[in-house]
Amino acid sequence: MGRVVVEVMPKPEILDPQGKAVLGALPRLGFAGITEVRQGRRFELEVDGEVTAEVLDLVQRAAETLLSNPVIEDVVRVAAIEDEGAAPLPAAAEGPA
Amino acid sequence: MGRVVVEVMPKPEILDPQGKAVLGALPRLGFAGITEVRQGRRFELEVDGEVTAEVLDLVQRAAETLLSNPVIEDVVRVAAIEDEGAAPLPAAAEGPA
Repeated sequence: MGRVVVEVMPKPEILDPQGKAVLGALPRLGFAGITEVRQGRRFELEVDGEVTAEVLDLVQRAAETLLSNPVIEDVVRVAAIEDEGAAPLPAAAEGPA
Repeated sequence: MGRVVVEVMPKPEILDPQGKAVLGALPRLGFAGITEVRQGRRFELEVDGEVTAEVLDLVQRAAETLLSNPVIEDVVRVAAIEDEGAAPLPAAAEGPA
């Protein structure tokens, strides 16, 4: 059983009232130095069998048609989750979003 | 100016009606082979200056107090976004979620 992560974010030109609300709340809670917040969605999908290129292609199409609204959102990431261990997450770099 | 990504997911024992709705819609739209869907949230934060360990620590605390509801959600990822280029995302592996 494989797992795939899909991440979608509001397009840059789209207003993001949820992100703005978070941005406004941060300094009130003592968190300084954050200048912008955008809020999107993250999906974790479990698939039958291994995460092959075909599976990633199917998930990519699902991401662009069902998991995101292509008018206002971009699919920023579709990737296999390979490590199923319980170790803490590394602070890994990722591509542009 | 640095950027940090924060990802939160519903805890495994918490019902996720949005994920269930997506799971039910997938086969109706012709996407077979997906056995489970969980929906969480992804935040992108812009910070003043570089993303230092101190900044990641501040964002981690913000993630656990403001960006997520610790009763029903887990913070699964707090990481710097290093690559600001416009290239397509690699299908990179990541840690457990």
